[in-house]
Amino acid sequence: MSEAGFKFDLLGTDGAVRRGKVTTPHGVINTPAFMPVGTSGAVKAMTAEDLDACGAEIILANTYHLYLRPGEKLIKAKGGLAKFTAWDKPTLTDSGGYQVFSMRDLSKIDDEGVTFRSHQDGSEHHFNARKVIEIERDIGADIIMSFDQCVPYPADEKLAADGVRRTYDWAKTGKEHFDDLEKIEPNGSALFGIIQGSTYKELRKISAEQIISLDFPGYAVGGLAVGESKDEMEEMLAHTIQFMPEDKPRYLMGVGYPEDILMAVSYGVDMFDCVLPTRNARTGMAFTSEGPLVFRNAVHAEEDIPLDPNCNCRVCRRYSRAYIRHLYNQSEITALVLATFHSTWFFQQLMRDIRNAIEEKKFAEFRKSFLERYQNNREDGRYKD
Amino acid sequence: MSEAGFKFDLLGTDGAVRRGKVTTPHGVINTPAFMPVGTSGAVKAMTAEDLDACGAEIILANTYHLYLRPGEKLIKAKGGLAKFTAWDKPTLTDSGGYQVFSMRDLSKIDDEGVTFRSHQDGSEHHFNARKVIEIERDIGADIIMSFDQCVPYPADEKLAADGVRRTYDWAKTGKEHFDDLEKIEPNGSALFGIIQGSTYKELRKISAEQIISLDFPGYAVGGLAVGESKDEMEEMLAHTIQFMPEDKPRYLMGVGYPEDILMAVSYGVDMFDCVLPTRNARTGMAFTSEGPLVFRNAVHAEEDIPLDPNCNCRVCRRYSRAYIRHLYNQSEITALVLATFHSTWFFQQLMRDIRNAIEEKKFAEFRKSFLERYQNNREDGRYKD
Repeated sequence: MSEAGFKFDLLGTDGAVRRGKVTTPHGVINTPAFMPVGTSGAVKAMTAEDLDACGAEIILANTYHLYLRPGEKLIKAKGGLAKFTAWDKPTLTDSGGYQVFSMRDLSKIDDEGVTFRSHQDGSEHHFNARKVIEIERDIGADIIMSFDQCVPYPADEKLAADGVRRTYDWAKTGKEHFDDLEKIEPNGSALFGIIQGSTYKELRKISAEQIISLDFPGYAVGGLAVGESKDEMEEMLAHTIQFMPEDKPRYLMGVGYPEDILMAVSYGVDMFDCVLPTRNARTGMAFTSEGPLVFRNAVHAEEDIPLDPNCNCRVCRRYSRAYIRHLYNQSEITALVLATFHSTWFFQQLMRDIRNAIEEKKFAEFRKSFLERYQNNREDGRYKD
Repeated sequence: MSEAGFKFDLLGTDGAVRRGKVTTPHGVINTPAFMPVGTSGAVKAMTAEDLDACGAEIILANTYHLYLRPGEKLIKAKGGLAKFTAWDKPTLTDSGGYQVFSMRDLSKIDDEGVTFRSHQDGSEHHFNARKVIEIERDIGADIIMSFDQCVPYPADEKLAADGVRRTYDWAKTGKEHFDDLEKIEPNGSALFGIIQGSTYKELRKISAEQIISLDFPGYAVGGLAVGESKDEMEEMLAHTIQFMPEDKPRYLMGVGYPEDILMAVSYGVDMFDCVLPTRNARTGMAFTSEGPLVFRNAVHAEEDIPLDPNCNCRVCRRYSRAYIRHLYNQSEITALVLATFHSTWFFQQLMRDIRNAIEEKKFAEFRKSFLERYQNNREDGRYKD
């Protein structure tokens, strides 16, 4: 049921801002949506029940990691990612392009694809556009991403142009292979294209036009949030998004901080993913309505208040900063569980608030009032990222 | 409200087997009860909600650890252990005697008490019977344990006799101090005495008579499950328990495996604690109705069945061995969360089943049928501890 199970409905707009609904074989995703990252098939320190409780409607998993362990064949044999993980709701897999980028000392890229060594056992592997499609189809997420080349920041124009060219070649090869395979054995996945181009406006335009010419059911902006400034990110996003069709979901990969999400939503982005809420929770930082909170710091040792005094999540309703900070400093897993739950909830609550604001055509006001509170308390030393 | 808030009711018996109810300031504990161990104020990888969901009615915390971090004064300032941890149900603290035993290369014992170095920062500290009572009162658990000397196994008779003598001296000094302090500032804790004596029957008898002469509201059998055989443990327990009063709760410290709990219940033990379910979960082993399951093993890589096919816990209702094993091998915290929840549930379910069997006066039958299933599958290599 290729794309048969996939649909995007634009439910409403507030200027450029969009409120939508993505329908997949495993269920509906209300957009703008934030996808918690479940690298190896689990969002770290969370259960599927926890994700449900936070209101997540889709999680992202990494093709690179799942290919290495437990292997896409095992996942396929177990009924695909949603069934294997017992999450049983929508999932998305990235293509491995970002892992190749972020572990580039372990990989070698050419026009044919990428040869890389496993970060786990050093074994050598090869990814190319066709193989990635096959792996992703076996993993069986509802949304799968084209194999792309994400270049580092800063990248010279030659490297960025090479990346754009390869990303297009691989997207085309991948899509053709995907379409062929779907004819033989449809599995209901929707394949998204990825736009690259680093921080070069002309390359962004070329990449957008090339990728969009291939007619994917959804498009991602890749290659941002890789080290460029927030201004550059905004400039590139604003520039790129003007070429993206309105009737397809728009996904800004790897973003990000609440302020970045709000910025991107203002330009009409529908989907996000980022490890920030979960990774930072494990290093002693929680996202709160009053800004990022380094809860591991000694200043919180005696605080009776919750991580976020304005939060209604089950962690904030029950546990004090003093307790969570103590557990964190004792290396207790429970601290990571509690902080991860809160920050995951916080991002889902942000998206719920954004969606409500759009429905009421008050997104700009919401963004302003959120940021006023969020950025207000940073200078007292408790809120510091 | 010293002991005012504490009460033990013997609800029924089935031969030597007892079904009881311990009432504490923070609530009721149905016995026989198993106390999950929350060393630093959290059961590792579990939240208070998880403990509730498993049906735990009391958790144990370690005085030694809480004294070092976050410090008993902080816990007192936060309203005591139950409030600080947001567990808000009955708690028990051990006295640190066992930590002194298990970290004996870091400690020096004499008649006055114990001088030890922190396992965390090497700082030097001193515990004695009076100080431990003060620390435990500040931590504020519902049940607190006398400071005792737990000797290693095997211990020569001289060492064991010294341990019995000191345990009595410290119990007496501690109880007098406790009674004095309770007169000044009652905090509702009940102080239990601990019987030592290693594997010497005569010493066990002396220790039991000495400790019981001090008239505590509850008594523990200490110094077992420290390396002796299961036969020796049973022999010592059977011998010791005959000296213990029927109208007070009997607590077998540090036990243990399901088969040991069943054995001890058969002699009339009411309370247990052990790190086994939680610690083993973190090393890749789950307790199941068909025996201990080393779920990390490759043989489980493709198994669709839950950790325990006969378990109704929320982990077993949702997740496969294949998935949990994969997560465990990827060092995912979620694997530890899932396995810990299951094994904690398993022990609480065992206690529920034991209590039900006693009420129906069918404990012996239950024990037999449980062990038949539990010990049946060990030889196939999947169930191996």
